Amino acid sequence: MLNVRVEIRLFEESDWPAVWEIWRSVAVAGDTYDYPLDSTEAEGRAFWLLPAPAETWVGVVDGELLGTYHVSANRVGNGDHVANGSYMVAAGARGRGVGRALVEHSLVRARELGYSAMQFNAVVVTNTSALRLYRTLGFIIVGTIPNGFRHRDLGMVDFHIMHRFL
Amino acid sequence: MLNVRVEIRLFEESDWPAVWEIWRSVAVAGDTYDYPLDSTEAEGRAFWLLPAPAETWVGVVDGELLGTYHVSANRVGNGDHVANGSYMVAAGARGRGVGRALVEHSLVRARELGYSAMQFNAVVVTNTSALRLYRTLGFIIVGTIPNGFRHRDLGMVDFHIMHRFL
Repeated sequence: MLNVRVEIRLFEESDWPAVWEIWRSVAVAGDTYDYPLDSTEAEGRAFWLLPAPAETWVGVVDGELLGTYHVSANRVGNGDHVANGSYMVAAGARGRGVGRALVEHSLVRARELGYSAMQFNAVVVTNTSALRLYRTLGFIIVGTIPNGFRHRDLGMVDFHIMHRFL
Repeated sequence: MLNVRVEIRLFEESDWPAVWEIWRSVAVAGDTYDYPLDSTEAEGRAFWLLPAPAETWVGVVDGELLGTYHVSANRVGNGDHVANGSYMVAAGARGRGVGRALVEHSLVRARELGYSAMQFNAVVVTNTSALRLYRTLGFIIVGTIPNGFRHRDLGMVDFHIMHRFL
């Protein structure tokens, strides 16, 4: 499928309704993230718009906001040189390269922000499209948490922990 | 060395000065936890006294507070069935079984609280006494984050991620 051209820019307050719609639908699907399925809009904001120096970005295609990511320090203090990234793409827009554009952008941005590596703490093993994308972009599975996730449809499944240097 | 008898009870506000002294000295040592070395007392409180349903416990030997741990959910939502535990023992009291008593207590307590597993996200690989203890108590290394930790004396070292079912 031909990939679309994705404009990626910093989140602005006026983006929130579109980001919330994506966020809510991803959370409630319960198959890729462990955000509470019944998160309120305020809780969703707190999960996604993390305090600085974390950053939230959005991906826009033909004027339509179709994806978002945030990048932050994965740990504090003397572990804060490793970044964490989280990504969401609108359900109707998947398979067109939006997610890939977001992840690639986040890797560049994380390096700009001074991080030396990126870690994902909880990639659901059944999220095969994300796993394939992350591996394509150089991430390796450094560990697996057995039964780490209560998948909404599948019950207990494992989480992978993934990592790559920047 | 003969192990001491450790009384383990829930943290009370009057315990804070002793907990803070242990917490501060462990943090500033910069060899086992990535809490910021220059954390203020208020920041230390926020890191250690997590909001409920997390719990903080203390270990007391002959009336002296020598160790502390907290147990919390390691993740949110559909990942909140896995616990996280963190442990600290006063520098002068190590090697006498206080840490072991705390970890053993936390495993029982975590099960009581309904968790089905315990995960440690960041065990510094050079923290050999903790690693030995955790393995003795049934934890396995499920992954390793290369150069995850800037050790105060040794520079970049790895973190292990450890896990056991309860």
